Amino acid sequence: MARVSQEHLDARRRQILDGAARCFARNGFHASSMQDVLREADLSAGAVYRYFRSKEELIAAIANEAFAGIRGAFEDAARTTPPPTPDVLLGRVLRRMLQEQVPGEDPQAFARLVVQVWTETLRDEQLATTLGEGYGGMRLAWAKLVDAYRANGLMAADVPADHVARTLIATAQGFIAQQALFGNVDVEVIEDGLRGLMSMSEPGAS
Amino acid sequence: MARVSQEHLDARRRQILDGAARCFARNGFHASSMQDVLREADLSAGAVYRYFRSKEELIAAIANEAFAGIRGAFEDAARTTPPPTPDVLLGRVLRRMLQEQVPGEDPQAFARLVVQVWTETLRDEQLATTLGEGYGGMRLAWAKLVDAYRANGLMAADVPADHVARTLIATAQGFIAQQALFGNVDVEVIEDGLRGLMSMSEPGAS
Repeated sequence: MARVSQEHLDARRRQILDGAARCFARNGFHASSMQDVLREADLSAGAVYRYFRSKEELIAAIANEAFAGIRGAFEDAARTTPPPTPDVLLGRVLRRMLQEQVPGEDPQAFARLVVQVWTETLRDEQLATTLGEGYGGMRLAWAKLVDAYRANGLMAADVPADHVARTLIATAQGFIAQQALFGNVDVEVIEDGLRGLMSMSEPGAS
Repeated sequence: MARVSQEHLDARRRQILDGAARCFARNGFHASSMQDVLREADLSAGAVYRYFRSKEELIAAIANEAFAGIRGAFEDAARTTPPPTPDVLLGRVLRRMLQEQVPGEDPQAFARLVVQVWTETLRDEQLATTLGEGYGGMRLAWAKLVDAYRANGLMAADVPADHVARTLIATAQGFIAQQALFGNVDVEVIEDGLRGLMSMSEPGAS
């Protein structure tokens, strides 16, 4: 009985989050009301407010899910020796993010939602905290992998690991911006681009 | 007489654009009215509307100036043989962009403005055209440099130049997103990060 009830709660929460993501991605965060989210999720007001009290809470939950997905991809990667190179790992993370986040919407939907969340974050402290924590977690995860690249002789030792981590996160963020603004960005573009950079000689290297 | 008049027109236009950039960066695009821009630029309504009819036209002009600055950095780079490596060139472009765009404001101001423009672009066709053209120009400029890297034996030949171009643009865009959202991003971070990537062995390379 208790188990069924928890399953029911989880399914209901999923239904709300998917409806909200579709709604925000289609009409924008500001133009979407909680009423629109209710309609999209096909639920009554009471049912939604029991889980989420505001649009901001919904966005924070969507963001946290996206970060959890990325963390999962990193944890899988960290179990491999030597770890997958950045082109392979970033490709894997982006495929997971872009394909799973907004079911049933066009391929630009999730990227458009992310860009709107960034703007919203400039004015919303709760969102800023959520994003800041997710960003901090990603920096640590990437920096650990950079250390593993070095331990396996794959990367020069004189570059701060955190700077490589932030550069790779920037590449992923820029990919999302391009997908939102211009569309048509296959994950292959970034995989190829990183491979191209990795094929360059470091200036001054032997 | 005509020359003085043109100088006067240019100075006035500059005054309006700087005032608008400060205003948008501080209060956001939506919360800023044309009245606020007038007050910030210390000008009368007639003086501003002669140059720009709407906030959208102001944003498009600010975006076009930013793209012109980036084009300038690329043209300088293209005159050097061999061309500067991506870490050097991207560092130069970002320093120029972030330091010159919003005079007298905090270092996050321009980045915050760019992120807001991205969100605005999702709903404004004129802005979408402006950004699309700037992006197209940057892709061509970077792709030409990638060809030059190859001609100088600096990069593997089997990666599409356009994919490397889009990856480097993505890195710059993500850097702007990080600066807007979290601050504290020195240009050195991206320079180091790209150097780190360039020091890696391409998988399967000899």
